[in-house]
Amino acid sequence: MQLKRQKFEINLNPIQRGGILTKEAREALIEFGDGYSVCDFCPGRLDLIEKPNIKNFIHEELPEFLGCDLVRATNGAREAMFAVMNSLKASRKEKKSIVLLDGNTHYSVYIAAERAGLDLDVVESSGYPEYKIDVKKFGEKIDSKKPLLVLLTYPDGNYGNFPDVKKLSKICKNKGVPLLLNCAYSIGRAEIKLNNLGVDFVVGSGQKSMAASGPIGVLGFNKEWENIILRKSKYYPKKEVEMLGCTSRGASMVTLIASFPKVKERIKNWGEEVEKARLFSKEMEKLGLKQLGEKPHNHDLLFLEAEFLYEISRKHKKRGFFLYHELKKRGIGGIKPGVTKNFKVSTYQLTRKEINKVVQTFREIIE
Amino acid sequence: MQLKRQKFEINLNPIQRGGILTKEAREALIEFGDGYSVCDFCPGRLDLIEKPNIKNFIHEELPEFLGCDLVRATNGAREAMFAVMNSLKASRKEKKSIVLLDGNTHYSVYIAAERAGLDLDVVESSGYPEYKIDVKKFGEKIDSKKPLLVLLTYPDGNYGNFPDVKKLSKICKNKGVPLLLNCAYSIGRAEIKLNNLGVDFVVGSGQKSMAASGPIGVLGFNKEWENIILRKSKYYPKKEVEMLGCTSRGASMVTLIASFPKVKERIKNWGEEVEKARLFSKEMEKLGLKQLGEKPHNHDLLFLEAEFLYEISRKHKKRGFFLYHELKKRGIGGIKPGVTKNFKVSTYQLTRKEINKVVQTFREIIE
Repeated sequence: MQLKRQKFEINLNPIQRGGILTKEAREALIEFGDGYSVCDFCPGRLDLIEKPNIKNFIHEELPEFLGCDLVRATNGAREAMFAVMNSLKASRKEKKSIVLLDGNTHYSVYIAAERAGLDLDVVESSGYPEYKIDVKKFGEKIDSKKPLLVLLTYPDGNYGNFPDVKKLSKICKNKGVPLLLNCAYSIGRAEIKLNNLGVDFVVGSGQKSMAASGPIGVLGFNKEWENIILRKSKYYPKKEVEMLGCTSRGASMVTLIASFPKVKERIKNWGEEVEKARLFSKEMEKLGLKQLGEKPHNHDLLFLEAEFLYEISRKHKKRGFFLYHELKKRGIGGIKPGVTKNFKVSTYQLTRKEINKVVQTFREIIE
Repeated sequence: MQLKRQKFEINLNPIQRGGILTKEAREALIEFGDGYSVCDFCPGRLDLIEKPNIKNFIHEELPEFLGCDLVRATNGAREAMFAVMNSLKASRKEKKSIVLLDGNTHYSVYIAAERAGLDLDVVESSGYPEYKIDVKKFGEKIDSKKPLLVLLTYPDGNYGNFPDVKKLSKICKNKGVPLLLNCAYSIGRAEIKLNNLGVDFVVGSGQKSMAASGPIGVLGFNKEWENIILRKSKYYPKKEVEMLGCTSRGASMVTLIASFPKVKERIKNWGEEVEKARLFSKEMEKLGLKQLGEKPHNHDLLFLEAEFLYEISRKHKKRGFFLYHELKKRGIGGIKPGVTKNFKVSTYQLTRKEINKVVQTFREIIE
């Protein structure tokens, strides 16, 4: 069956921009496309395979990259967060425990906690228009009910806000609660070092930010957690229970490895990426749109509010679909069909020329 | 980083033979290689995406193919089995429950049960040389301690044995215990219809038997289990807890869809595949090797014992590696370097000419 993707010259969808494959990853995908092809020379566990060199990647390169002792590849960021929750729960005697989240947390974290049989408590954001997370509030919540885990989204997937993780990691350390940092939108874009930030777990997403085919994620932590997160099977002592023996046994793994040298390079340009996002935000605001979230902004993910585009849509013959169609005509995609009032975009790895084209296109549509 | 796979003209590894991509899957992999590319037009859940048409595939084609009401794609067969165990456990009040397995069960099932906090009991096989599972023994075990779930491997990944599932499904139905059939080595090779077999759950593997890139699996069941397996999130009512919202969000999904028309066709040739396996077994036995497992054999996965190759290896300058090297020289791979005494091979989708070449090669090596 032939499957074709609807392609756009410029795709603004934030979940797409960091996952565009490198040339090397595209070649690796073809080379290792067949089912279990990374397992030709398996010595008994995925992370120990040397041909292709998954072992070096998982045990040397990724720990160095993430500034921590140990890393495992998972089937995605949400699967990594579930693995941490499920492991922590298995390590405790209490039947009822909670995970304490920030109010900008991705939906899949709520569901991971539900799946692990954990309750939730939430530190709400400041709300419209900045949706900032005040990390001091975590301390109060922890004092009233000690959670199994604190989880901070860094940045979140709606507004692209970076809360003060260093302050929170000090609070958590003082109060003896582990802290997981969800970096699905930062690992692979910006420098994230677990030890510098003082957190217990970092989670990244291959398809969101590491130029890999989905689904694949990374989970980093220090040795103090090894016996809990990487506890071995009592039936098969070489296998890690929480990884179900092996995780990402396929093509997504080789794309992650193949893109990695370029990912290491691209994080050095993060400053320029933030500059471009700020420029874009400024130009769009000149057109009458409003950027929500932190200002000045520190990430390429931008939430834009456009009340007047919604007003246009109410009179337009294509109704809410006019914006999608007008953009599509000009080669721009990634804003959902039907959406006008507010939407998320990302400028990640767009050239300044492309960003100008997007601004110019919005200007034309509005005029 | 350039990654190259060591390729063989003929790869005998059983985990590789059913996962070779079709031409259509290879094209789909390139088309949808980028990160989250299947999610361009997501209406809120992976299985509801219509562009590419995952919705039709998951909700129409797969249920028809597997003879059941509902199917979900998972991150693999083991992940599907964990999902069933975790769901069943969440649905019960008892703290301690067991899963009852057959003695030929794949290691990942033991680990899935451990991860779900479940104990195990095992119906042992008949042992050497046939390793058959007598399903009547399940009845006795169930009577002495009622399990949460019975799991049968169909066929197992060591000997390629098919136990009497219809008899077992009657036993389980009578005793009111759900039965999961692990068909990682059969769905995509042979016809498997849940309703004909009378089981509660079927699990398949995209990379093992459905010509897909790993990791991806399928989980089929009837509506009676919907509220347990597909229970919705209390926080996000559209999302399914056990799927963590969405599962296989990437390239492996499109390869599964793209190969599916050919997979549906190839299962019609299953009789011929069994014939070829039997022929191969007979020829190898003429050379002095011994096929373990059921005889006559009913699957392409063959466990061969070769005591005399081991004897050769003890005197050979390459020791145990001689067999791997001799085969490699002649373009044949898939038997682990260092192994001689016994090994698993598969003849799946090899031509008779290729099978003859393998037999002839072994003959030359032995002589």
